[in-house]
Amino acid sequence: MDSEKLLDTINSPDDLKKLDYKQLDRLCGEIREMMINSISKTGGHLASNLGVVELTVAIHKVFHSPDDQIVWDVGHQCYTHKILTGRADKFNTLRQEGGLSGFPKPCESEHDAFIAGHSSTSISAALGLAKAKSLQGNNDDYTIAVIGDGSLTGGLAYEALNNAGRSHEKLIVILNDNKMSISKNVGAVARHLAVTRSKPLYFRIKLGVERFLLKIPKIGRTIAGWIIRFKAWIKSILYNNTLFENMGFAYLGPVDGHDIKTLCEVLQSSKNIRRPVVLHVCTTKGKGYSFAENDPKHFHGIGCFDIQTGDDEHSSNNFSEYFGQALCEFAEKDDRICAITAAMVPGTGLSKFAKLYRERLFDVGIAEAHAATFSAGLAKNGMLPVFAVYSTFAQRCYDQIIHDAALQKLNVVFAIDRAGIVGEDGETHQGLFDAAFLNSIPNVTILAPSSYIEIRDMLYKAIYQIDGVVALRYPRGSEYKLPDDYIYEGEKWYVYGNKHAKYAIVTYGRIFANACNAAKMAAEHGIDICVLKLNTIKPISKDTIEYSLQFDKIFFMEEGMGQGGIGEHFLNMLNMEKYHGDFILTAIKDEFVPQSTVQKGLEKYSLDVNGMFNTILEECRNDR
Amino acid sequence: MDSEKLLDTINSPDDLKKLDYKQLDRLCGEIREMMINSISKTGGHLASNLGVVELTVAIHKVFHSPDDQIVWDVGHQCYTHKILTGRADKFNTLRQEGGLSGFPKPCESEHDAFIAGHSSTSISAALGLAKAKSLQGNNDDYTIAVIGDGSLTGGLAYEALNNAGRSHEKLIVILNDNKMSISKNVGAVARHLAVTRSKPLYFRIKLGVERFLLKIPKIGRTIAGWIIRFKAWIKSILYNNTLFENMGFAYLGPVDGHDIKTLCEVLQSSKNIRRPVVLHVCTTKGKGYSFAENDPKHFHGIGCFDIQTGDDEHSSNNFSEYFGQALCEFAEKDDRICAITAAMVPGTGLSKFAKLYRERLFDVGIAEAHAATFSAGLAKNGMLPVFAVYSTFAQRCYDQIIHDAALQKLNVVFAIDRAGIVGEDGETHQGLFDAAFLNSIPNVTILAPSSYIEIRDMLYKAIYQIDGVVALRYPRGSEYKLPDDYIYEGEKWYVYGNKHAKYAIVTYGRIFANACNAAKMAAEHGIDICVLKLNTIKPISKDTIEYSLQFDKIFFMEEGMGQGGIGEHFLNMLNMEKYHGDFILTAIKDEFVPQSTVQKGLEKYSLDVNGMFNTILEECRNDR
Repeated sequence: MDSEKLLDTINSPDDLKKLDYKQLDRLCGEIREMMINSISKTGGHLASNLGVVELTVAIHKVFHSPDDQIVWDVGHQCYTHKILTGRADKFNTLRQEGGLSGFPKPCESEHDAFIAGHSSTSISAALGLAKAKSLQGNNDDYTIAVIGDGSLTGGLAYEALNNAGRSHEKLIVILNDNKMSISKNVGAVARHLAVTRSKPLYFRIKLGVERFLLKIPKIGRTIAGWIIRFKAWIKSILYNNTLFENMGFAYLGPVDGHDIKTLCEVLQSSKNIRRPVVLHVCTTKGKGYSFAENDPKHFHGIGCFDIQTGDDEHSSNNFSEYFGQALCEFAEKDDRICAITAAMVPGTGLSKFAKLYRERLFDVGIAEAHAATFSAGLAKNGMLPVFAVYSTFAQRCYDQIIHDAALQKLNVVFAIDRAGIVGEDGETHQGLFDAAFLNSIPNVTILAPSSYIEIRDMLYKAIYQIDGVVALRYPRGSEYKLPDDYIYEGEKWYVYGNKHAKYAIVTYGRIFANACNAAKMAAEHGIDICVLKLNTIKPISKDTIEYSLQFDKIFFMEEGMGQGGIGEHFLNMLNMEKYHGDFILTAIKDEFVPQSTVQKGLEKYSLDVNGMFNTILEECRNDR
Repeated sequence: MDSEKLLDTINSPDDLKKLDYKQLDRLCGEIREMMINSISKTGGHLASNLGVVELTVAIHKVFHSPDDQIVWDVGHQCYTHKILTGRADKFNTLRQEGGLSGFPKPCESEHDAFIAGHSSTSISAALGLAKAKSLQGNNDDYTIAVIGDGSLTGGLAYEALNNAGRSHEKLIVILNDNKMSISKNVGAVARHLAVTRSKPLYFRIKLGVERFLLKIPKIGRTIAGWIIRFKAWIKSILYNNTLFENMGFAYLGPVDGHDIKTLCEVLQSSKNIRRPVVLHVCTTKGKGYSFAENDPKHFHGIGCFDIQTGDDEHSSNNFSEYFGQALCEFAEKDDRICAITAAMVPGTGLSKFAKLYRERLFDVGIAEAHAATFSAGLAKNGMLPVFAVYSTFAQRCYDQIIHDAALQKLNVVFAIDRAGIVGEDGETHQGLFDAAFLNSIPNVTILAPSSYIEIRDMLYKAIYQIDGVVALRYPRGSEYKLPDDYIYEGEKWYVYGNKHAKYAIVTYGRIFANACNAAKMAAEHGIDICVLKLNTIKPISKDTIEYSLQFDKIFFMEEGMGQGGIGEHFLNMLNMEKYHGDFILTAIKDEFVPQSTVQKGLEKYSLDVNGMFNTILEECRNDR
């Protein structure tokens, strides 16, 4: 019996209810072992998931999912939840095409109450879910948001707290405080949490004094005089002393997030409070796997790794690193250059910059909107701000790009990382919208490097040679192998191959490499085609269009949304010049792109070499 | 001397420095008189500007603009600032074409440190400005953000406070607390402010006790025992007792915002605090003009009005009102329908709904991102949320539309008000991006009513007949007169005029009326043209395209950004079907559109009747 795994007996959260605390502890150990084993092979978010094993088990022990709804903020810490809700057997398919998503996904299970992937959404979503329940007369079921201290730096979380504090829903916000978001957590709220964490004693005293003041009316003449005079006042201070109590929540904690028994008890008591609750739980990222505990940042999102040594296949040979390196180089000579990041120092390649130019590195927390407007402020007073941000998260500062930066034509550089298909993170993280949404904003220039050399040169141009907002967009991972005879010349556009070929592929970014190879394959099939590479994708220069008029067919290949994208605009520019040839747009269709490898994603939309070649072949059948 | 106006002697803030408090009071009276007179003729934001006359005068008395930089949040309360900084003589051109902007505009004056128009940006921008100064070694000059209590409900303000609290810049945040944002201010922070406001006595006691505890070490054996034991603890509570102190700011106030002398003194003392300061100032919206004081909401943004009676040319004959009316009608029969607004109950036509269905009306504060995700939560649990939001502010929930609503294909209706050219509010408020940015998001349908009848029907369709996110976009103001023989049939598209004409105008929204008139004019000139009206602008149905292939020329007329807009996508769809006719796109160019009347704005881009007609005439010269 002892050799049998408890985990094998858990097919739904109901099965947890029968276990005692000792068994639950054992179960947590088994879950950890399973996660470490499996993630070492598939890659994934290890450290954050190891941190919330007990918390997740306790939540499912005390609450009744799916009636009680659990909303995971950011969502990448939901692995234990997936394992406990009937998906343990599919856990080895994590983040793979057709497999389990690395994030909560309602279409995957009724236990996934709401989608996640971006930070700070959980309280808003949970409040909506809770409000719907109470409007429908359901006063029994709880809604639980589990949010990290990092996510709490996002304004959306604050907007939701502000709105929820006055509500009377059965809403429980569990603050998973692991003292660290992806980067080092910064800002006033983080400091406030640190202070609160250090005061469990204080909270015990608080409770003691409260009881003392409320229950014992008289304890001696002299002190009683004091008490009577200040009782109401001190009471109001006591009740309103944390940030959350200021906002109208009942505050419980801090609680040790690895102590199942205490967690269950506090969760149980949180059920009885007749207003929204914030439960402050302290966890250790990477808990139970020494390598991850010691370097949780490294094990945040990781590829395959060796369990015994903790070594992974990490490579610094990627666009982010080359971007960071170039920025350091320029910053050395020019102290106006600042780097801004929204809690993504390592992810965006800024670790070296952070070390060398500490006073010019601004990690503002998971706060993209603030990062953009703050950058605009820096630029207004003569600094040269470069805000490095993933494409998918740049969506969060869309209005600030328009209203605070572009409208004033301020030279803010947006280094848009992970632009294009991102692979295993799936729908929530694809960088497929940036070219389209930036395309319609005046005073914005968009540059699209295809290689490390280009990212350096274009970054230089963005900082020094172009007015207004400049977006520099580059993909996740490493550069694709470019033809040996390709030379980057630094102009707005470039033609590879026969400059007066019959046909042309027009493209930009990483898939330029694919286009060159597809063109070669086409040449081998007797099709006369060159590749027009756009280095500047907004504005499209007029001479590009004039030059393009000569081609009988133009194949526009775009790793981004087709609708509203650069290709459609290119077509209209051709149209204005009375282009009479054929125009064939290959781009991402009007749908969300699920997880798979980057290569598979490109194949799906015919943006890989073969896909491009087949499109050309299909259209040029009659040439052969 | 007494009959001469003090205001005539003020050409720059320096001239203020010579005046004593009594004269400053007199000056405030003159400024109020001038504003009321002038705004009664031009229209503008009256109530908020009347509220900050003394505060603005005090700021300019104590600080030294432009070295000290003042950032006005939202910006519509900057009139006194404009009057004091050399623009009094142009004040009668306010909000008119070529005249003074109703918002701060750096290109208008060196005293306008940063642009504004959208809410909650000031602290981020000010922090950027301040940080730039200190990086440049300028430790003398201050940066001042003036932000209303309403703006404080926006997450961006929180992200900035969170980031600024730990900085050491000379940053002063003036909280202009007028107890009311545009709608009734809601949420936990508002309540917190209300509590704080009611406790000036408490703050005096606080100071007293502090001094008492810090300065007098012993006052008697019994009490001293208490004090020694709890001094550190109580002190920490005292110092961290407001929301702002929790966030690392020094907190001063609350102060009477109409008492010049006190204001100047407190501002002066705020200069000496060696960390960021929040100065809490209480003002009365509409101060000094009884009609505005009694109904500040009505006098928030107002057209021309009669000074003696307070009557204005307000009309309820507009899209917002008809939207609100239709929503009430549907909500009466279906209690799943909820209305969500970001502090814009009257502006979006929801006043009646708020009265009738109080429990289903959610005013979440100036928090568009939260509003969108909260709506998605409501929809996920089976409610029918309709979030009414101005087009320009919908930019603030771009990511939430993608990530929280569209990705899960939730039926959230976005009622996009003020879509298109908005007129006098100018650049910051134009609703020209929504069609473009929604165009590239999967699972989104966009409907474009041209009349009150259509808004009702399309709202019904959006709620009940279309899956996923639906955006219903309609313009500011009233419907344009449609031809008598036009009948709305409720289909996805409609053809007005000869269905098999040689040419067609394709268009949508309000300017369909202009297109009909332009087509009539063209007919009178012997040009055979019909008007294809798109009711659904995303997705464009395939049969629209098939039908359109017959036309020799297609004039696509779009009141929105051309680049990335519906027209360019329409062209590509035509192109995919091998359309061989001419396609002429008339839309908003790649530039920001300045203030003017709506009509003038349409004229500028040839989207008025004559402009359309001239475009057609030009292209069809050879027909005649």
